[in-house]
Amino acid sequence: MFLQVINYASNTSAGAVCIDPDCSWVEHWVHRAGPRKEIYYEPEEVKAAIVTCGGLCPGLNDVIRQIVFTLEIYGVKNIVGIQFGYRGFFEKGLKEMPLSRDVVENINLAGGSFLGVSRGGAKTSEIVDSIQARRIDMLFVIGGNGSHAGANAIHEECRKRKLKVSVVAVPKTIDNDILFMDKTFGFDTAVEEAQRAINSAYIEARSAYHGVGLVKLMGRSTGFIAMHASLSSGQIDVCLIPEVSFTLDGEHGVLSHLEHLLETKGFCVVCVAEGAGQDLLQKSNATDASGNVILSDFGVHMQQKIKKHFKDIGVLADVKYIDPTYMVRACRANASDAILCTVLGQNAVHGAFAGFSGITSGICNTHYAFLPITEVITTPKHVNPNSRMWHRCLTSTGQPDFH
Amino acid sequence: MFLQVINYASNTSAGAVCIDPDCSWVEHWVHRAGPRKEIYYEPEEVKAAIVTCGGLCPGLNDVIRQIVFTLEIYGVKNIVGIQFGYRGFFEKGLKEMPLSRDVVENINLAGGSFLGVSRGGAKTSEIVDSIQARRIDMLFVIGGNGSHAGANAIHEECRKRKLKVSVVAVPKTIDNDILFMDKTFGFDTAVEEAQRAINSAYIEARSAYHGVGLVKLMGRSTGFIAMHASLSSGQIDVCLIPEVSFTLDGEHGVLSHLEHLLETKGFCVVCVAEGAGQDLLQKSNATDASGNVILSDFGVHMQQKIKKHFKDIGVLADVKYIDPTYMVRACRANASDAILCTVLGQNAVHGAFAGFSGITSGICNTHYAFLPITEVITTPKHVNPNSRMWHRCLTSTGQPDFH
Amino acid sequence: MFLQVINYASNTSAGAVCIDPDCSWVEHWVHRAGPRKEIYYEPEEVKAAIVTCGGLCPGLNDVIRQIVFTLEIYGVKNIVGIQFGYRGFFEKGLKEMPLSRDVVENINLAGGSFLGVSRGGAKTSEIVDSIQARRIDMLFVIGGNGSHAGANAIHEECRKRKLKVSVVAVPKTIDNDILFMDKTFGFDTAVEEAQRAINSAYIEARSAYHGVGLVKLMGRSTGFIAMHASLSSGQIDVCLIPEVSFTLDGEHGVLSHLEHLLETKGFCVVCVAEGAGQDLLQKSNATDASGNVILSDFGVHMQQKIKKHFKDIGVLADVKYIDPTYMVRACRANASDAILCTVLGQNAVHGAFAGFSGITSGICNTHYAFLPITEVITTPKHVNPNSRMWHRCLTSTGQPDFH
Amino acid sequence: MFLQVINYASNTSAGAVCIDPDCSWVEHWVHRAGPRKEIYYEPEEVKAAIVTCGGLCPGLNDVIRQIVFTLEIYGVKNIVGIQFGYRGFFEKGLKEMPLSRDVVENINLAGGSFLGVSRGGAKTSEIVDSIQARRIDMLFVIGGNGSHAGANAIHEECRKRKLKVSVVAVPKTIDNDILFMDKTFGFDTAVEEAQRAINSAYIEARSAYHGVGLVKLMGRSTGFIAMHASLSSGQIDVCLIPEVSFTLDGEHGVLSHLEHLLETKGFCVVCVAEGAGQDLLQKSNATDASGNVILSDFGVHMQQKIKKHFKDIGVLADVKYIDPTYMVRACRANASDAILCTVLGQNAVHGAFAGFSGITSGICNTHYAFLPITEVITTPKHVNPNSRMWHRCLTSTGQPDFH
Repeated sequence: MFLQVINYASNTSAGAVCIDPDCSWVEHWVHRAGPRKEIYYEPEEVKAAIVTCGGLCPGLNDVIRQIVFTLEIYGVKNIVGIQFGYRGFFEKGLKEMPLSRDVVENINLAGGSFLGVSRGGAKTSEIVDSIQARRIDMLFVIGGNGSHAGANAIHEECRKRKLKVSVVAVPKTIDNDILFMDKTFGFDTAVEEAQRAINSAYIEARSAYHGVGLVKLMGRSTGFIAMHASLSSGQIDVCLIPEVSFTLDGEHGVLSHLEHLLETKGFCVVCVAEGAGQDLLQKSNATDASGNVILSDFGVHMQQKIKKHFKDIGVLADVKYIDPTYMVRACRANASDAILCTVLGQNAVHGAFAGFSGITSGICNTHYAFLPITEVITTPKHVNPNSRMWHRCLTSTGQPDFH
Repeated sequence: MFLQVINYASNTSAGAVCIDPDCSWVEHWVHRAGPRKEIYYEPEEVKAAIVTCGGLCPGLNDVIRQIVFTLEIYGVKNIVGIQFGYRGFFEKGLKEMPLSRDVVENINLAGGSFLGVSRGGAKTSEIVDSIQARRIDMLFVIGGNGSHAGANAIHEECRKRKLKVSVVAVPKTIDNDILFMDKTFGFDTAVEEAQRAINSAYIEARSAYHGVGLVKLMGRSTGFIAMHASLSSGQIDVCLIPEVSFTLDGEHGVLSHLEHLLETKGFCVVCVAEGAGQDLLQKSNATDASGNVILSDFGVHMQQKIKKHFKDIGVLADVKYIDPTYMVRACRANASDAILCTVLGQNAVHGAFAGFSGITSGICNTHYAFLPITEVITTPKHVNPNSRMWHRCLTSTGQPDFH
Repeated sequence: MFLQVINYASNTSAGAVCIDPDCSWVEHWVHRAGPRKEIYYEPEEVKAAIVTCGGLCPGLNDVIRQIVFTLEIYGVKNIVGIQFGYRGFFEKGLKEMPLSRDVVENINLAGGSFLGVSRGGAKTSEIVDSIQARRIDMLFVIGGNGSHAGANAIHEECRKRKLKVSVVAVPKTIDNDILFMDKTFGFDTAVEEAQRAINSAYIEARSAYHGVGLVKLMGRSTGFIAMHASLSSGQIDVCLIPEVSFTLDGEHGVLSHLEHLLETKGFCVVCVAEGAGQDLLQKSNATDASGNVILSDFGVHMQQKIKKHFKDIGVLADVKYIDPTYMVRACRANASDAILCTVLGQNAVHGAFAGFSGITSGICNTHYAFLPITEVITTPKHVNPNSRMWHRCLTSTGQPDFH
Repeated sequence: MFLQVINYASNTSAGAVCIDPDCSWVEHWVHRAGPRKEIYYEPEEVKAAIVTCGGLCPGLNDVIRQIVFTLEIYGVKNIVGIQFGYRGFFEKGLKEMPLSRDVVENINLAGGSFLGVSRGGAKTSEIVDSIQARRIDMLFVIGGNGSHAGANAIHEECRKRKLKVSVVAVPKTIDNDILFMDKTFGFDTAVEEAQRAINSAYIEARSAYHGVGLVKLMGRSTGFIAMHASLSSGQIDVCLIPEVSFTLDGEHGVLSHLEHLLETKGFCVVCVAEGAGQDLLQKSNATDASGNVILSDFGVHMQQKIKKHFKDIGVLADVKYIDPTYMVRACRANASDAILCTVLGQNAVHGAFAGFSGITSGICNTHYAFLPITEVITTPKHVNPNSRMWHRCLTSTGQPDFH
C-alpha cells in the first residue's frame, strides 16, 4: 500500500504530516476531503480509537457513529472508544469501550456524547505512552481549539517517537468559531434551540406589563449564535456580542434604549452572548480545566444592571432572565447538522486511511476539506462588524449604535 | 328570564351567591358544571370582560379563546379583554381590547397571555368602581390563589353595592395546588416541558465525568411538578419537594447519597422543587407584588452546597444547574391541557349565564364542577407524603429517607 | 410464602385466578393494584417473560422498561423478552432476549417496541408447551383485546396443566377502547400527535382557495381519538365517528354542510375515525392476522366522495387528505403516558408476585386496579353519543345532526 | 431620484430590466443583492403588493413578513396582500388585504401562507389590467417555476404598456430545484420534517416481523429531499430518486435487494421521491392547474409492487407506507430557513427600490444575488448522480446499483 498524497512535514506553515517517511512533498496545505484510491493501512490490522473532548455539542454522537460505520466499511475490526476525553487515556477504571455498528446504531437519537467528555487532561507524553501501550494506529479527536492543540501535540510526539499513528481531528465548537470553516457541526441545532429560548423570553416579555426578556446565549469570544438566533427569531430588539463594543449607561447606552422601547412598544427582548461586554466587567484570572479564562457572567450582570436602572429611574420593569445553555448543548443534532456530521465523520476516516496525521476535517467555502490543525487553531473566527450578516441583524433588531 | 338554580348567599360555608336576590336556597355548594336550561341574562345586552392575573401558565390563551367562543354562541356581542391583570382596571393608557372569534381564533397556538398578565392590583373598591363605570355584567378572572381572593372580594363588593355582576373564576396555577381540583390547566404541559429540562440534565450528567445534573422546577409550596416530572422522565435519582423534609449533611443526608451515586453509577440527576428545603435556608420577609413571600432560591443554594461538599471531600463533581422555569411557563398548552381549558372555559360561561357569582370552574373527582371561591382558597393542595404516587416516585428514584 | 389475597377460581363472572390452589375465596373481582405484604414467589427462582402483541402504541417501551426495573427491585435475575409477539414462542430463529436495567435503561426514548410485535400466533397449546419448556413462571402480555383473549387462554391452559404460571396483561390499545378503564396508555400521546396532523390539515385548508382538509385517525370501532383530537385542536368543523351514524348526501348530509362551510368561511377541516360510516361502505369479510375484520377505508372513501360531490355541483374544492396513522403510532410516550406506563408496569409485577393470574392492570375511576381479563374483553368501550364529552365536541365543531 | 445600476433591456440573455427607460447598460446579469445608495421610488407614494402562488412551502409567512417590515423601513405606507395567488387579481370577492408590521408580526409562528395560495390563474393581460387599475408600483411574487414564468410575463406586459412596475420574485420550491440557487427556502425544514416520517417508518419496520417501511417524499423531478433526508436520518436502506434509473424486478432489482435485507437484518426502510421510476409507470397526459404534468404516484405503486412480490415468493413482509407530504409542507420554517427567508425578503425589497424588474432574489455560491427570472426558469436543477453527495448517500444506505 502506498501513501497517495502529501507530506506536510516540510511545509513550515503547517504541522500536519503524512505518516509515511518516504512520501513526496506537496505545496498545498488544504486538501479536498474524500476517499483516496490507495490507502495507507491494512484495515484488518488497524486499531482505531475515538475520543470526545471539552463541552457537549449537538452531533457528537452522529460523528462517533459515522466514524465507526466508515471504519467498518473499510474493514476495520478493532474500534474502541476512549472514555471522558483525554482523561480516558490515564484515569484508572476508565476502560476502552468496544465499538461496532450494533453498539452505535441509534446513539444519534440522543444528545450528549456516548463516550463521555471532559476538559483538560494529562501530559502529552503520558497520552502517547498510553497510545503506544494500547497499540492504537488511528486516533480520532473530536474537540474544540484546546483539544485540537492537544491532538497536534500528540501527533508531534508520535512523529518524534516514529510511531505510525494518524491523528485526525473533527472540530467541535458550538460557537462556530473555527477559522476557515464555513460552519461547525452543532451550530445550526444550537441556533434552532436558542430560538426556542428567545421565543419564551418574547412570550414572557410581551405578556408582562413592561416586560423585559433577557436571554444569554453561548459565545465566549464570538457572537455567531446570538446573531443568528436573533435574526432567525425576528423577536429581538437588542443583540449584544463580544465583537461589537457598547456602553450600557448614558444617553446612547443600551439602558436608555430599553427605556425608549418600554415607552413605545411596552416590552422588549434582549439577547446577549456570554462573552459580550467583558470590558464592562471586573476581570478575573481564573481558568477552567481546559485552560480557558473563566469569563465573568455578562448575562447575570446585565440582568442586575437593568433591574437597578429601572428601579433608579422609578419605572416599572419586569425582567425575566433565561440561560438555556445546557438545554441547547444537550440537544440531538437537527437534520442539517446530521448531514454535516455524517460527511465530516466519513472524511476523517478517509483522511486517516490516506495516511494523513495532524489534520482536521471541515467544510471551507462549501467544499469539504482537510486542513492542518496548526492552521485552524491560530485564532478563533469572529463576527465581522462590517459584514452584511451583522448589518442584517441590526436591520432586524432596529437597534442603534450604543456609543 | 329566571335564575334556575341556587342562592349560595345563606350558605355560610361558601361566599358564592346567585346574583338574583329572589332565588331559592340550595344546600349543596358544589354544582355540576355545564349549560343550564334557563339563563339569567339577555345575551344581547351583556357586556363580558376577561382578565388574566399572576404569572404565565400554559393554556391561558386556550381559556380566553373558549370563553369568547362560548359567549358568542350564547349571543353575546360585547366582549372585552382587560389588559395586564387587575392593573387594566385602573392604569391609565391600558384600554379594553375588543374580543371576538376573529381576534382570538389562533391565539392558542402561542403561549403566554394574549391579554397580558400582572401581579397585585388596586383596592377592590377602585376595581368595582371601574366595573361599574364600564357597565360590565360578567367578569371572568383567570388567576391563582391571590387572584381568586381578589375575585371574591370584587364579588362581595358588587353584592354590597347591589350590582348584578357575575364574577366567575378559572383556577390558573401551574403548580396544581388548588384544593379539591383533580388537576389545573397547564400542569400537564409543565410536566412535559420540565421533562425536557430533566433529559438535558441527564444527558449532561451522563456525558460528564462525575456529572451531577441539577434541575429546579416550579412549586413554591408543593412538589407536584417535581414529583410528576421525576416519575415521567425515569431519569431522576433524587427528588426533593417542600412536603418532605430532608437533611443535606450527615451520614443519611442528600450529599452523602450523591457521593454514593457518583461512586457506583458515575453520575446522578437531582430534581428540586423551588420551595423545597426552606427550613435549611435563611428566612426572608420580602413579598412580591401578589403578596407571596419571596422564597430563598433553593436551587441555587443546592448547587452551591453540592459544589462545596465535593470540593471539601476532594472528589471531582461536575455540576450542571438548569432552571427552565420561564421556558416551561411560556409554552403553549399540550393536547390534554387544551381539552381541559376548552371545557373549563365553556363551563365558566355556563356558570355566569346561570346567574352564579363568586364561583370557580374546575374538575373534581373526574367531574367538572362549580365551586365557591371561598372554599378553594382556604389552603393550597399538597403532595401527601404517604400517598401511593409519592411512593411510586421513591421507587422510581430509588432514593432513601434523608434523615 | 403465602398468597395473600384471592382465588378468583370460583367467581363465575371472572376467569382470573390465584395460582395457589389453597387460597381462600373473595367476592370482589376488582382489586386495588399495588404491592402486597406477602409474595407468592421466591424472586431468585423466578423466570419472567415479557411479550408485546398487535400493532404499535406509544409507551410500549416504557411498560417493558418498568416491568424489568420492578422485577429487579423484587430480586428477579432471570428476565427475558419474547420477540415479535406470540410468534416468538414458536418461530425458529427468534431467540429470547435477556433483559436487565442496563439493556432497557433508555429504550423509552424511542417509540416502537424493543421486543418487536406481531399479530396472530400459534395454538394456545403450542405456546404453553413453549412456556413449559422454557420454565417461565411469569408471563407479562402487553396487547389489545385479541392478545388479552390469547393471554387468558394461556392462563386457562396453564391451570389445566397445573402449571404455576402467572399470566398478567397490560392493555395496549391506542384507541382507548378497553372496558372499565379510564384510559389506556398511548392514547394521550396519540391525541397529541393526531393534533399535529389536524393542524397541518387546517394550515393546508386555510391557505388554499376553497380548501378542504381531511384527516383520518385511528379508531376501528370507537371515536375516542377523533373526538379528543378534534376538541383539543379546536380546528375541526366536522368530526365523524363510528358510534354516531350520519348521511353524506342529501339536504342534511355532511357534503351539503361542507358546501355551506366553503361558502361562509371559505375552507373547512374534517376529521374521521377509520371505522366511521361503515354502513355506507361495501362490506368485506376479510380479516387480518389478529382476526379483526378488515374495514373498508372510510378516509379514502370520504376523500373520493368530497371530490366527486364538488365536481358534480361545479364548485371548486381543493381537498387535502392526511393519514398520519403510522406517525402517530410510532411516537414515544409523552409525559402523561410515561407516568401511566410506569404505574401499570409496576402494578403488573406486584400482581404477579401476589400470585394472580388471568388479570390485567389498569386504571378505573382514577384508581389503579387489577381486573380479570375475561371481564374487560367482553366488548370494546364506546363513545356515548349522549355524553357531555361528545356534546362538547359538537359545540366545538359547530356541526349539525347529519340526518 | 436616479436609477443606480442597470438596464437589462438590451441584455439578450435576460429579460430582466430596469424600469427606468433612461438607465445605462451593464453587462453582468447577476447582481449582488442588498440595499443601494440611491433608490428609484418615493417610498411615500409607493403601493406595493405581495402574492404567493403554487403549493405550500415552509417559510412563506417569513418572506411575506420580512417584505412588509423592509418596505416599512423604506417608508412605504401602502402595502397590500393579493389573496390566493394570481386568482386574487381577478376573482370577485377576493379583496386586497392591508398589510403592516402589526398585522404580520407573528405570522411566521404558523406554517402556510397568510395570504393564501392557489395554482394557475388568468391571462397575463387581465392581471396587468388589474395591476394598472389598483395602481400597484411593486409586485412581489413568491412562487415556483410556473409562477416565475407568470411573473416574467407580467413584467414584459408592464414594459409593453410602459407601466413603471417592479416585478420581483422570490423562488419558492420545497424541492430545492431552482437553477443557480444554493438552496431555496423551506428545503431545510422539509428535510427535517421528512426525517420524522423516516424515523416513524424505521420504528414501524424494526418493531415488526419482516417489517418494510416505505416513505414517499416530495420531488417531482428531483431527488434532493429524498437524498438529504436519507442521509440525515441514517436509517434508510434504499433511496430511489428521479435522476437515477433502476429496475424493480430481476436479480439486480430493488425487490431482490429487499429480500436480501429481510433475510439478513430482518427489516428495511425505503425512501422514494414522488417522481422516481416514472419510466416504470403508465404515462398520463393530465396536468394540474399550474400546468404541471400529473405524475403517477410512484409511492403507491411501489407499495403494491413490494406486497405483490413478497406474496408471490411466499415470504412474509409487513409493509407500512407513509406519505407525509402535507405534514411537511405545512410546517413553519426552522431557524436556518427563517434566516434565509429574512435575507431573501429584505433583498427583494432592495431590488425593487433599486428599480429592477423581472428579477428574482436568491443565494448563489454562498452570495445573495438578483438574477433575471428568464435565466432561472429554463430548466429545473437536478441531483447529479456523479456528485459526492449522491455517493455519500449511497455509502450511507449501502444500496447497490439496481441494474
